[in-house]
Amino acid sequence: MLACGPGGSHLRTLRSTPARDGFRMPAEYERHDGCWMLWPERPDIWRAGAKPAQAAFAAVAAAIQSSEPVTVGASAAQYENACARLPSGVRVVELSMNDAWARDTGPTVVVDANGRRRGVDWPFNAWGGLGGGLYFPWDLDDAVAGKILQVERLDRYRAPFVLEGGAIHVDGQGTCLTTEECLLNANRNPRLSRAEVEQGLREYLGVSKVIWLGQGAYLDETGGHIDELACFVKPGHVLLTWTEDRRDPQYAISRDALARLTAARDARGRRLTVHKILQPGPLNMTEEEAALIDLRRGSRPRLAGERLCASYVNFYVGNRAVVMPRLDPRRDAAAGRILKRLFPGRRVIGVDTREVLLGGGNIHCITQQIPRAVAPRR
Amino acid sequence: MLACGPGGSHLRTLRSTPARDGFRMPAEYERHDGCWMLWPERPDIWRAGAKPAQAAFAAVAAAIQSSEPVTVGASAAQYENACARLPSGVRVVELSMNDAWARDTGPTVVVDANGRRRGVDWPFNAWGGLGGGLYFPWDLDDAVAGKILQVERLDRYRAPFVLEGGAIHVDGQGTCLTTEECLLNANRNPRLSRAEVEQGLREYLGVSKVIWLGQGAYLDETGGHIDELACFVKPGHVLLTWTEDRRDPQYAISRDALARLTAARDARGRRLTVHKILQPGPLNMTEEEAALIDLRRGSRPRLAGERLCASYVNFYVGNRAVVMPRLDPRRDAAAGRILKRLFPGRRVIGVDTREVLLGGGNIHCITQQIPRAVAPRR
Repeated sequence: MLACGPGGSHLRTLRSTPARDGFRMPAEYERHDGCWMLWPERPDIWRAGAKPAQAAFAAVAAAIQSSEPVTVGASAAQYENACARLPSGVRVVELSMNDAWARDTGPTVVVDANGRRRGVDWPFNAWGGLGGGLYFPWDLDDAVAGKILQVERLDRYRAPFVLEGGAIHVDGQGTCLTTEECLLNANRNPRLSRAEVEQGLREYLGVSKVIWLGQGAYLDETGGHIDELACFVKPGHVLLTWTEDRRDPQYAISRDALARLTAARDARGRRLTVHKILQPGPLNMTEEEAALIDLRRGSRPRLAGERLCASYVNFYVGNRAVVMPRLDPRRDAAAGRILKRLFPGRRVIGVDTREVLLGGGNIHCITQQIPRAVAPRR
Repeated sequence: MLACGPGGSHLRTLRSTPARDGFRMPAEYERHDGCWMLWPERPDIWRAGAKPAQAAFAAVAAAIQSSEPVTVGASAAQYENACARLPSGVRVVELSMNDAWARDTGPTVVVDANGRRRGVDWPFNAWGGLGGGLYFPWDLDDAVAGKILQVERLDRYRAPFVLEGGAIHVDGQGTCLTTEECLLNANRNPRLSRAEVEQGLREYLGVSKVIWLGQGAYLDETGGHIDELACFVKPGHVLLTWTEDRRDPQYAISRDALARLTAARDARGRRLTVHKILQPGPLNMTEEEAALIDLRRGSRPRLAGERLCASYVNFYVGNRAVVMPRLDPRRDAAAGRILKRLFPGRRVIGVDTREVLLGGGNIHCITQQIPRAVAPRR
């Protein structure tokens, strides 16, 4: 599964771990050098030849670019088209991929106290491999993180276990938030116990405490990523997707998450303040939308009527702006007000991203921050 | 022929010219940030599926890396193999191409006095387009410079005339050296007069004087590139490939070049000192070599017995090393001594590059420096 064999280039692949070398994953709300995205093109995932999704991705890129530099990886076949559709100033680089989820296939960049940065390249198996993964093959996706790290001239750690970036959130102060549904799923790392997965997170994220939620958001096709369910908005504060409808299966999931969060302590021993944000919808795929998606052997069919996993928690925190999905006219404004209150130093920019939702994720799933190096203390 | 349409990304495409904006092309012997190369793979140009050429390119990359950072662009299909064969520390980025001549398809990076850098992206037509070009199509090659500039985050000028980087040398002090055979060839810019080409060089290289030699080196399949014939080794000093064999067609070419160089003045009004370097060989393609090259419609056949255009002038000047081709055991050592004398502050590293020669060029042709920004004066 290694993107590149041992002993070759790939800048340098380190044999140690981030924690052992004094590195940690910064929180998304710490400073960034910029943001990476990938350009969608698969007609079996994105309707109408991916043209509506490409417009949505370009709008997301434009919103993030108002706050920090954006790089978009595009396949050779789509490179010219990506250049033409993306706003001026976005950097486009050639990058082959199986699909366009930079959060899950991109690297996790870690920093140390001496101003250095490195990248964690997680093995990727399309959210479950042959036991429930969303498409086959996923070889190009598994190479994405390594390629991004080379463009950024960052040495890498190749983690020894499967993980997608959307499966974790950190507070930047030693705490990781994740779900049992995803990380303990037999289709990710069947031979690892909970204790071993926790140890892996400690080693590769530089955290000392893992808070386990149970299930991810209802019908999340990734198998329960944290990034549709809850996230840190600052140390000690978690935002949780919510519904008041007891008949909605999301209700029990959010209630259970709230109970676990309320009972938890973070790495510094603090209790967590939990903020709720009402989910949009429920939203379902229409006949018209489903009719424009190709069928393909090896890819999960995307069918009319199926409920979409929609959550306002799936936003991106840029240096000066929070970029949030606009999904439901009855709920968008209230969600925006909550984010404005939780991120007082940042603008909140809403982008219409139903087209991203149709592909199975949202703004957080299609972005990956490159943290800024932390200036060394004298 | 534009790599990307107007109005889209490509960072920024500037409507002005380098000279108008105060930019100039630095000489190769000025300081670099690093060097770009491209990874060979075409079996109709590189024998034995390009494996021997890949080994030679990797050896060139290793030699240059001893002196400055190296980036190698490789196609998606060859990315993993390039990583495995290149030395650790070389940055590999995905880049599609028609062939691997970074000198000719890469950008010319220009600098100004305020510490800024930009790139010139020259239209490329495979050394002569449909009127004598070496292969068809060349669309991916024409996009290479723009892609490299995006990776390097440099805004670009798209030049309005065809030029390859191997067709020009500059002294960094206002003088450009080129050949009539190449730049005035009807298969490059048939509608431009000599005066118009000169004006283009002034605008896009920031030079004030163009010194025209006549023919390029004998049988140079590019159509007379300067970089097999002569180059600046410092301001006021030119190195010229030479033979004492009057029956060799190269003799008259080098004699004519010497006469023109001796008569010329550079941009600062200096006479030029000309240093001679004896050519290797003559060298010819063997039966064994030709037998392992694919035939392909649209590509110039590469046949047993044909003389190869071999010259020691086709070296690369890195920050701390000059990397020169080793081509002929009877001549390599003497050539190395000349380069050592002309570049006293640098090591001279010889690399066996017959495999590059078989593809039609040598070390200078497969490399492209990215100059360092010049620190602004206070």
